[in-house]
Parts: sequence; C-alpha cells; structure tokens
Amino acid sequence: MTDRPIVIVTEALTAEPLAWLGERAEVIHAAVGTPEFEEHRGRASGLVVRTYTRVDGELLAGMPALRVVGRAGVGLDNIDLDACAARGVRVERTPDANTDAVVEFVTAMMLDAIRPRVGLDRAIDQGEWNALRTELVAPRQLAGSTLGVLGFGRIGSRIASVGRALNMRVLYHDLVEIDPERRGDAVAVGLDELLAASDVLTVHVDGRRSNRGLLGEGSFARMKDDVIFINTSRGFVVDADACADFMRARPGAQALLDVHEPEPVPIDHPLLMMPSVCLTPHIASATLPAKDAMSWVVRPVWERLSDPVPTA
Amino acid sequence: MTDRPIVIVTEALTAEPLAWLGERAEVIHAAVGTPEFEEHRGRASGLVVRTYTRVDGELLAGMPALRVVGRAGVGLDNIDLDACAARGVRVERTPDANTDAVVEFVTAMMLDAIRPRVGLDRAIDQGEWNALRTELVAPRQLAGSTLGVLGFGRIGSRIASVGRALNMRVLYHDLVEIDPERRGDAVAVGLDELLAASDVLTVHVDGRRSNRGLLGEGSFARMKDDVIFINTSRGFVVDADACADFMRARPGAQALLDVHEPEPVPIDHPLLMMPSVCLTPHIASATLPAKDAMSWVVRPVWERLSDPVPTA
Repeated sequence: MTDRPIVIVTEALTAEPLAWLGERAEVIHAAVGTPEFEEHRGRASGLVVRTYTRVDGELLAGMPALRVVGRAGVGLDNIDLDACAARGVRVERTPDANTDAVVEFVTAMMLDAIRPRVGLDRAIDQGEWNALRTELVAPRQLAGSTLGVLGFGRIGSRIASVGRALNMRVLYHDLVEIDPERRGDAVAVGLDELLAASDVLTVHVDGRRSNRGLLGEGSFARMKDDVIFINTSRGFVVDADACADFMRARPGAQALLDVHEPEPVPIDHPLLMMPSVCLTPHIASATLPAKDAMSWVVRPVWERLSDPVPTA
Repeated sequence: MTDRPIVIVTEALTAEPLAWLGERAEVIHAAVGTPEFEEHRGRASGLVVRTYTRVDGELLAGMPALRVVGRAGVGLDNIDLDACAARGVRVERTPDANTDAVVEFVTAMMLDAIRPRVGLDRAIDQGEWNALRTELVAPRQLAGSTLGVLGFGRIGSRIASVGRALNMRVLYHDLVEIDPERRGDAVAVGLDELLAASDVLTVHVDGRRSNRGLLGEGSFARMKDDVIFINTSRGFVVDADACADFMRARPGAQALLDVHEPEPVPIDHPLLMMPSVCLTPHIASATLPAKDAMSWVVRPVWERLSDPVPTA
C-alpha cells in the first residue's frame, strides 16, 4: 500500500508523460470493466482517458474518490461534463495538442485526392516510362480551386492558411464571427453557399450534439458533382447513408473520411468499400508529437490532485 | 500543299492549344529522326518541344527555315541557346506554367515522407483496429521542424510559403539576394548551414551547367542523419553515388527524387530499389492544368511566325 494518489489510465499514453506521472502518483493501467479497474476504481482520485472511454454518471458513481478526469486530447464527446460537475470532478484536456497533426493529415488527404504518384520499384524501358508518366497526369490541381472550411476554429483556420499558400481560394462557414486577423483573406459565407462553391470541402466542427447529422441528404444535394469531401471532425456529423447515396450518384466526387460512426467501421457500414471513398482509421491526430502533447494532460491532472482536498 | 507555316511538334501537347495552333499553321507531329520529321524539317519554320527533344546545332543545321523554337515548359536544359541565337532562331517558353503543380507535388512528397496512412479495404475488428492505429502513428510532424529550400526562385519561394503555413521554420539559400517581400519570414543562410540545419531539404535550382553535381559527398556529409531530401529540379544536380552511399549509411534518412540522370532510370542506377529512397518518374509538373499552360507556348510561337520575315 501507498499513500500516493491513485490515477487510473484507461488508454495508452506516451512514455515520458506516463513516467512523469508515475513519479508522483500510483498509476494503474486498466480499461474500464477489467478486474484491475474494478479493484482500484473505488480509491482512485484521478482518471486519464483518451477517445474511447465513456465517462458518464454510471462510471462516476463507481468512483467516489475521483477528483479529476484528464482527457488526453481535444474533444469532450466521451465525457459527460454535467455528471462530472455534479460530483465536483474537474475535467482537464489538451485543446491545441493535435492541431498540427490534423492540419498535416488534411493537407495530405487533399493531395492524395488529386495527385496520383508512384515510386519506381524496378527499372522500366522508355515505352513503359512514357506510359507511366501519361497515366500519372493529374486531371486537376488544388491551385485555383476553392477550399471550403466548415468550422473555422483552431484547425479550420490553420487549414485555411495552408490552402491560401497553395493558391486556393478559401471560403468558410462558422456559427460565430471570426475576427479579421484570424480570418486572413478567407471569406465568410453561408452554409449553403459553402456547400455549393467548394471544390474541396473539409469539416472541422466540434462534437456538440446539434452537429449530429449536420451533413445530410440536403447538404450533399448542394455540393459539386466533383467535390472532394473530407471529414476529420466527428463521424456522427455526416449522415453516412446520404453520403453513400451521393457518392454513388456522382462518380466524379470523392470522400475522404477519417472519423466514423461507429468505430471500428462495421461490415455493414454504407461507405465501406465504395470506389471513390477512402476511409482511414481515425488517424488524423496520430503522430507521436501530438500523442505526447495530449499525454501531457497528466500535468494539469496532477496539479488538481496536488490541490488540498476540500473539506466537507 | 499549303502556304501556311509548318510547325513540327516533337512531343505531346494538350488538345486545346494544339487545335488553336492547327487553325493557324500546318502542324506535323513527329519525333526527331522519324521519317515524317525528316520529310518536313527542311521547310519547318516552327518547332515545339517539351523535355526530351535536344535542340542543338546539328538539329538546327538540318532546319534552315526554322525561325522559332517553343519549349512547352520551364527549363531550357535541352535547348542550345547559343546555337539558336547564332541562327537567329527565337526561343519561347512558359516560365510559370508548372509552379503550382510542382509546389503541390513537393508538399505531397513531404507529407508522404512523414505521414503513413491507409484506407480500409474491409471491416476490421476492435483488435485489428487498435493495432492498425498504433502502427500508423507518425514518428514526426512537419510542424516545428526546419524546411531548407535550396534555390529560392518561383517554385522555391512558394514552397517556403507552404512550409510556413504548416508551421515549419524556413531557411533558404540562393545565389542572389531575395527582396524582403518575396522572402517573407524565410531566413537566408549559407549553403553549409542550410545542409546542416534542414530536417526537410528541397532542391529548386535551375539547370545551369555549374549545378551539375552540386550535391555530392561533401554536401551529404553535412546533412542530418534523418534528413528528408527532396529533388524535383534536375537529376544531374545530385551525385547519385554519393546520395546512395549516404542513404546506406543513414537508415533514418529518406530521399524522394523525381528527376534522374539519365531518364528512364536504368537498371544499374545506384538509387534504384533502396528501401529509404522513392524515385518517382519525373511527374512533379504532371498535371493537366500545367500541361495546358505549358502547351500554350504555341501562342508566342505563333506570334513569332506572324512577324514579317526579316529581309536578308
């Protein structure tokens, strides 16, 4: 036994932040529902989760000593903030930890959509060389086309800057007014205009409940026949059936989707194995620097645990 | 027979510019040395080439009526400018036609080097999902790393802007001083410092003779062990043996090379089939918009042919 506070870590953190926490607290690695989790949950004062652990009233009810939940990441979709507040449990997260990683991933997706490329795996003769070079000619460029950014927050505004550097015209739509400095020369438009005008449309809205099904049949109907549609925000933002219907009807369109409802993508998911749809396994923020930055949520978690326990 | 000027086109142009020229001149499609080329070369007053046709004194000697050579593209490595000048043959080209295409390709190469990604080709279970997501974690990001641009011309300066938008620190080296507005916040450094400091080093020098072997053993020796080395400029700028030795000695480094000496890449090329080297088949400018813009060299070619013939 130890008198150091117990912190349960339910998903993988990177080594250095974990070691840092381990020097201060008793760290238990255990997914929710495992015997080890059951053994320690009653005494744990800290809980660190990532994407897939649901922190709800039921979980909290079984953790009476809990003082702080750390979400190694940005979105709080998996955390019931009201339930935490009702029990006086603080919630910490790392809001800017994955911005660069997602910006780089979305840039890669845009280029993957328009720019075929292969590395030579052997010497080829002049005829094959010419044929390969002809086959790899890209029908379109990003430059000169219109990038539509739906949700102009931390990530969306950075994607806009990359688009501008790539000589794209940038439009965006957001619920709130964006101050001119952050907006740059991106142009605010209504949602319908954004949908209709975008050659590349990328979604960066947050996980609020009202964004469920934000992009449904009516939205897809407005989009260009050859739109490149990218979603790295939340799977539930897109109505997958409507998206699949659209993709079937518009063979020139492409969808690159990194987030899904549910995950893993089940065998009957309407967008699985469609020729113009690329489903990546929720990896937009999957870089070591981002994981490190997210894992450092252990620092504010520890700060909370170091606060004096409020007296009843 | 026709009294319209004859223009020989030795490599492929895109349809619209070609049709435009065909309305004005008698257009002959024929590679150098083919019977059709031989048949028409004596009377041709225009010649349009792309990358692989060598326009030298010998070729010109067989084309006594030639008044203008159009190079559908940027570099003039394949054109003997002195020989053209000596015969009063004008040379036209399309200097900015491929800038966007190359900028997009180099951006894609940078991201390919650091960012693994796959699309799901079937449903996978939770275990495979987790394993795949772990496997795809990128060890590094572009953000926060140093981009070195060797040659800060049309393309290099645009790559620098993209690098800045991706939160990279940008250094460059050029033979000439770059005016502050074009430079932005990219920092000029000496060549040795550029080689030593770059996490990503991208080459955008021109095809002048003195750039042959510009990057040899001594240059590679200065580079970082885990440099990402990109060349889309000219194959002969890089000493392929020195590059291969370096790549063998530094397993953490990567080379992404789009231009080669010679092309097609022969079976005994030292960089072929090395695990950390990606050789693409000279496709950095391979987009339809770029090919269109390059093919419109027919416009200045036609303007020259429309000039009155100088009297002797």
